[in-house]
Amino acid sequence: MSDQPADAAQAGATPAQEPAGGTTPPELLSLRASIDNLDAALVHLLAERFRCTRAVGALKARMDLPPADPGREKIQIARLRDLASESGLDPEFAEKFLALIIDEVIHHHLHAREEPQA
Amino acid sequence: MSDQPADAAQAGATPAQEPAGGTTPPELLSLRASIDNLDAALVHLLAERFRCTRAVGALKARMDLPPADPGREKIQIARLRDLASESGLDPEFAEKFLALIIDEVIHHHLHAREEPQA
Repeated sequence: MSDQPADAAQAGATPAQEPAGGTTPPELLSLRASIDNLDAALVHLLAERFRCTRAVGALKARMDLPPADPGREKIQIARLRDLASESGLDPEFAEKFLALIIDEVIHHHLHAREEPQA
Repeated sequence: MSDQPADAAQAGATPAQEPAGGTTPPELLSLRASIDNLDAALVHLLAERFRCTRAVGALKARMDLPPADPGREKIQIARLRDLASESGLDPEFAEKFLALIIDEVIHHHLHAREEPQA
């Protein structure tokens, strides 16, 4: 990190260890440290989720099941909207988030189908 | 859950407790149970992330700081792409995911600015 410019925005991007730089208020630096930690957790959970969906893709390709499953997706959307409401997340955002994931998953599944079977 | 139709897709949507329904392979039901648990965790982390960014929004409105911070965003994108690469997540997907979040955050910040100060 020592080769990066030490401007205020930079200081906010790295949690905890970074000294409060320039004109960024300490309260903002503290909130950004939490956000950066949550983002790291989100990225790791997404990586694990795609490990699962890649396994689903391989299974579906092996068993010649269709990549998309509209019935399952409808139920996932309803469930995530409910979980979002309970936890104070905008259900519309939760639905957009799931749509982004499902697009990526279907892309992976189609790709898995094109690859030779392991 | 007992009032829901017991088709195969339905059985896959609820983790663990649901009996293996209809024609869905047990291996697929098991992977879907993991995916549903990860999705619940993701929704709760996102809810917490937006609690932080709402606090950032309120702070920025109070201190009359601009809602968007391109310098910070650039660093966040680079950091999340690196974290994604390390954990086996497609960095392109991580960037799309962050863009979705940042769009929502800026929308929140603009909205916070329009509200009377607490």
